[in-house]
Amino acid sequence: MTTSVAILGASGYTGAELIRLIATHPDLRITALSGERKAGMAMAEVFPHLRHLNLPDLMKIEEIDFASVDLVFCALPHATSQAVIDKLPRDLKIVDLSADFRLRDPAAYEKWYGKPHAAVELQQEAVYGLTEFYRDEIRRARLVACTGCNAAAGQYALRPLIEAGLIDLDEIVIDLKAGVSGAGRALKENLLHAELSEGFHAYSAGGIHRHLGEFDQEFSKIAGRPVEVQFTPHLIPANRGILATVYVRGEARDIHATLAKAYADETFIEVLPFGEHPSTRHVRGSNFAHVGVVADRRQGRAMVIVAIDNLTKGSSGQALQNANLMLGIAEETGLMLAPCFP
Amino acid sequence: MTTSVAILGASGYTGAELIRLIATHPDLRITALSGERKAGMAMAEVFPHLRHLNLPDLMKIEEIDFASVDLVFCALPHATSQAVIDKLPRDLKIVDLSADFRLRDPAAYEKWYGKPHAAVELQQEAVYGLTEFYRDEIRRARLVACTGCNAAAGQYALRPLIEAGLIDLDEIVIDLKAGVSGAGRALKENLLHAELSEGFHAYSAGGIHRHLGEFDQEFSKIAGRPVEVQFTPHLIPANRGILATVYVRGEARDIHATLAKAYADETFIEVLPFGEHPSTRHVRGSNFAHVGVVADRRQGRAMVIVAIDNLTKGSSGQALQNANLMLGIAEETGLMLAPCFP
Amino acid sequence: MTTSVAILGASGYTGAELIRLIATHPDLRITALSGERKAGMAMAEVFPHLRHLNLPDLMKIEEIDFASVDLVFCALPHATSQAVIDKLPRDLKIVDLSADFRLRDPAAYEKWYGKPHAAVELQQEAVYGLTEFYRDEIRRARLVACTGCNAAAGQYALRPLIEAGLIDLDEIVIDLKAGVSGAGRALKENLLHAELSEGFHAYSAGGIHRHLGEFDQEFSKIAGRPVEVQFTPHLIPANRGILATVYVRGEARDIHATLAKAYADETFIEVLPFGEHPSTRHVRGSNFAHVGVVADRRQGRAMVIVAIDNLTKGSSGQALQNANLMLGIAEETGLMLAPCFP
Amino acid sequence: MTTSVAILGASGYTGAELIRLIATHPDLRITALSGERKAGMAMAEVFPHLRHLNLPDLMKIEEIDFASVDLVFCALPHATSQAVIDKLPRDLKIVDLSADFRLRDPAAYEKWYGKPHAAVELQQEAVYGLTEFYRDEIRRARLVACTGCNAAAGQYALRPLIEAGLIDLDEIVIDLKAGVSGAGRALKENLLHAELSEGFHAYSAGGIHRHLGEFDQEFSKIAGRPVEVQFTPHLIPANRGILATVYVRGEARDIHATLAKAYADETFIEVLPFGEHPSTRHVRGSNFAHVGVVADRRQGRAMVIVAIDNLTKGSSGQALQNANLMLGIAEETGLMLAPCFP
Repeated sequence: MTTSVAILGASGYTGAELIRLIATHPDLRITALSGERKAGMAMAEVFPHLRHLNLPDLMKIEEIDFASVDLVFCALPHATSQAVIDKLPRDLKIVDLSADFRLRDPAAYEKWYGKPHAAVELQQEAVYGLTEFYRDEIRRARLVACTGCNAAAGQYALRPLIEAGLIDLDEIVIDLKAGVSGAGRALKENLLHAELSEGFHAYSAGGIHRHLGEFDQEFSKIAGRPVEVQFTPHLIPANRGILATVYVRGEARDIHATLAKAYADETFIEVLPFGEHPSTRHVRGSNFAHVGVVADRRQGRAMVIVAIDNLTKGSSGQALQNANLMLGIAEETGLMLAPCFP
Repeated sequence: MTTSVAILGASGYTGAELIRLIATHPDLRITALSGERKAGMAMAEVFPHLRHLNLPDLMKIEEIDFASVDLVFCALPHATSQAVIDKLPRDLKIVDLSADFRLRDPAAYEKWYGKPHAAVELQQEAVYGLTEFYRDEIRRARLVACTGCNAAAGQYALRPLIEAGLIDLDEIVIDLKAGVSGAGRALKENLLHAELSEGFHAYSAGGIHRHLGEFDQEFSKIAGRPVEVQFTPHLIPANRGILATVYVRGEARDIHATLAKAYADETFIEVLPFGEHPSTRHVRGSNFAHVGVVADRRQGRAMVIVAIDNLTKGSSGQALQNANLMLGIAEETGLMLAPCFP
Repeated sequence: MTTSVAILGASGYTGAELIRLIATHPDLRITALSGERKAGMAMAEVFPHLRHLNLPDLMKIEEIDFASVDLVFCALPHATSQAVIDKLPRDLKIVDLSADFRLRDPAAYEKWYGKPHAAVELQQEAVYGLTEFYRDEIRRARLVACTGCNAAAGQYALRPLIEAGLIDLDEIVIDLKAGVSGAGRALKENLLHAELSEGFHAYSAGGIHRHLGEFDQEFSKIAGRPVEVQFTPHLIPANRGILATVYVRGEARDIHATLAKAYADETFIEVLPFGEHPSTRHVRGSNFAHVGVVADRRQGRAMVIVAIDNLTKGSSGQALQNANLMLGIAEETGLMLAPCFP
Repeated sequence: MTTSVAILGASGYTGAELIRLIATHPDLRITALSGERKAGMAMAEVFPHLRHLNLPDLMKIEEIDFASVDLVFCALPHATSQAVIDKLPRDLKIVDLSADFRLRDPAAYEKWYGKPHAAVELQQEAVYGLTEFYRDEIRRARLVACTGCNAAAGQYALRPLIEAGLIDLDEIVIDLKAGVSGAGRALKENLLHAELSEGFHAYSAGGIHRHLGEFDQEFSKIAGRPVEVQFTPHLIPANRGILATVYVRGEARDIHATLAKAYADETFIEVLPFGEHPSTRHVRGSNFAHVGVVADRRQGRAMVIVAIDNLTKGSSGQALQNANLMLGIAEETGLMLAPCFP
């Protein structure tokens, strides 16, 4: 029996990526797609690479009959998402890809996003969508908030280490490199090809990037005390990919062993042999994460390096993995596509 | 029941692309992989993006037990291929991705490849692998020679038009743009990133590119008289993709109608609405071909533009499509992956 | 003695390229820069790569004191340019980089640009800025209209051949590939890095690209009868560069000899040895044009291939070359920068 | 009066970059170019972008008449360089771009480069070529060893801070991102376009990159005690550019003020306003370095970010700057080219 899903915000990259993945999913059927500004357009016009699929045209959200939908993927912009989800039927399963329901604490939300949350009750209900660490909660959840793509990469490196008490919590540096699709399809001068290609730079350095809210929440919760990491994202001239180079204080061999053990049974997390460096190109277009551990020349210091595809494991792949869990479908269904290299 | 396949030349890009596609194919199991220079290595070392798959290590060809293999994909370099295939059991099904068995005429082979064919008998036996046009022969074939990637793109534009007598056979210009993966993984100075990126150029212009041998053979066969096209390939700084801009003399509307009709039942060939331009990015990583037709301002002239992924529809996807036919499996099995955009 | 120049539209790419070139010009001094939407901003904010230069802030055009300006480079958008230039002092030397004054015939202008010209008198006065062919007129001109970047590339291939009567005027195909900076700094979805990189496509095929107006005007003028070429531009994922692959009917050796002779004394036009292919990467960031001629396998057919940098020889370099002539400065001053490779 | 220079190793990228820069230098004349494997070839074949220059053909080193040469740029590979320079006349001025003479201590050389130095006496004589910090020694030097490109970027961030005692010497992390031209023109699989583009990764992490030898030597010398930094280089899919993101413990405002003061009179080092992020694209093709300082959210932590072009300020531009000093020419001669953006 196929399950009926709707995708809100299907004219953006995470919406398109969901469709790409669901295209070969045997149990899901896309019955509605929304796109406010492009409502009425065929998907072949909005995303010609999906031309071969038999998809519904884009419509406005209010035109969707949610009674016939089993699960909604909400790929709307931040802030819009909470307003829309607040109006959806309260028994509808929802996987939200925005930032709106990632933070549990209303004060933290307001601090990082600059205004009060408009659906505090739902904020409390939502489950954080980092699948490998919230699997049971996600299975039972009605509303799942997928993580930020950068936040996912950093947490794959650090959660098991904080949990195991292996590293100095005050000395964590996350130097992150991200491809451009993470910035979305918005019309911004700095996202033009001529501006972006053939160069690279840091942005939002110094503790102002919003994904820090997720790091703070999750790491502090695991540690049982406040943890603040140092985090610098960089924009790299490639479409897909996040590489988190995480500098920690701890014994590299122990760190490697702990991560290898933590992810031993995980389908999508591959811990590389000790000393090897992962690359974003080797996870491109896939739901896999590659994790490497390298010892520094100075005793007691190590680098944990994580590579994911921001649109897949960092967003839409993660969303589908969560949806599978929520729907009682085998978790990896539709997600075993091998990375697309070269 | 799964079918056992071997891939010879699995350390190159077309070999890796075959593995990527077969990874989600329900009926095929890879039981042997060869790679002469890298024999003994694990595929995770050779192609880290395939790390999650449970694959055999690379071995030398002579180490493979072909008795337990149902079909061989041969992704070896030109010239090597004919020597190797000549020694394989004569009842083994073979899909060859090299240029060695594309040309039927020994003289034509020698003209384009500079020396006599070493397995003329097999050359006669082989079936040309352009699936949509040789489907019945491929089903019955033991040895199928997949087309050149450029040759595939050009033929999708032109075969139905020549067949229908719609265009002037002496006035065909194929201006072709190709991404770099088509040149393979060979160590050549002009394939280095620093040499290639941020620039573009024509190469092998003037009638010396070997894929002309295929054009000549096929177009002349359809037309029933010699046909020689003008063909200029260009190297473009992108990994995947071929765009063939084909200039023809004929009525654009008739051309569009003829192509639309010719491909109406084809799963993988999408003819765009009249006047639309296809793009390689919208077929990337997929087995789809997008075909556009645009009228020139001067009556009786038109452009047919074809976009494919050189590694997929132009090579390994085509190979798998042919293998499916040869094995009695539904033709599109393992090939319905949506293009990976952005 | 230094000459005072102003650049109108200094917040776009051609404006920035002019500044880059003038930065090492010994005789010119930039005394005013305009940028309507960014008026008041420092150039270091608008173009951080020009940070080291001592430049005036952007201002509005009406704030510029043209009495102290010897020559104006007008790098404004099409249509805006004619309105602005119409109001400038009639004794001011002007090099216009827009399309507004390229066409002499008001009817042709209206045909290609969709509305009547607003300064027909100036349209008559303007001199076409293809330096090598209008040198004397440019020296005497007050208003010079730089050519379209695509139009420049095509004309370098064809003008001497049409002049010499060497080719069939009815059988000219210009297949052109262009980098993305030619599209400017406008916020358009199809110019985003994630949309554009790793793919390529034709656009405005079939005789609707506006640079055809220039081809028609110039080629018909030389030939003394109407000439209409077939022209398909393609967008390539690289920042700079135009490659025009021009298919002609004529004897390749004669064509090569004619081009070699025509450009023998030209500083910026390099005709390659017969049979060699030029590449855009070898002219990047420079005012040089590389011209190659290749014979087709069929007698009487040839390809002429021209590579230029669209922002330099195709626009701002050409503009500076023209300004030098208009000011009585040695033509190549400030323009001898070698291409930036890799 | 022009000075005669020779370039040894002119078939590599740093050799070509030297020629590009010298092309507009009024006082230098290139009288000999060497390239062992390509001896006898014209530069137009080896580097077509230099076609317009009147350059000598490549020859073998032993064919060069050094009596008529005033200064030699040695752009040979590591290890080769010391053997060659050891045989050159001892009164010849030499700017070496290799790693051979960067380290003063023979033991350090052997540690980082794996074998004993073959010209220890010259190793002692050589002056370290980081112009801004060794200006007086360079003026008087006969043999100058240009710095590693990564080492230059890191030192621009850190030297004034270590000198001023502003940062914790045991807590320095240099996360460095580098474009691909720094790896040279060698035929390596991982440098192919198809391998490299559209992905990014760390390499030589953990304290094994050879540029650490320079960091150790220089920082320890300034500090007067051993200093070991943590250093992870990453390979980014762009041709040119190095971005060093340096994590330090110290007061960000003090750090900014100290750097601004240290570089106030330097032509090529631009310290950005506090809190701004530099980008490699804004120094591309130029000898400029952009330095930014950002405060972390946690008091007492800061990021210093440096952008240079690895081939220019990181190598050949630095080399020319040093040569100017050695020859008594104004330091910035031939180096004021503005960055090439976009």
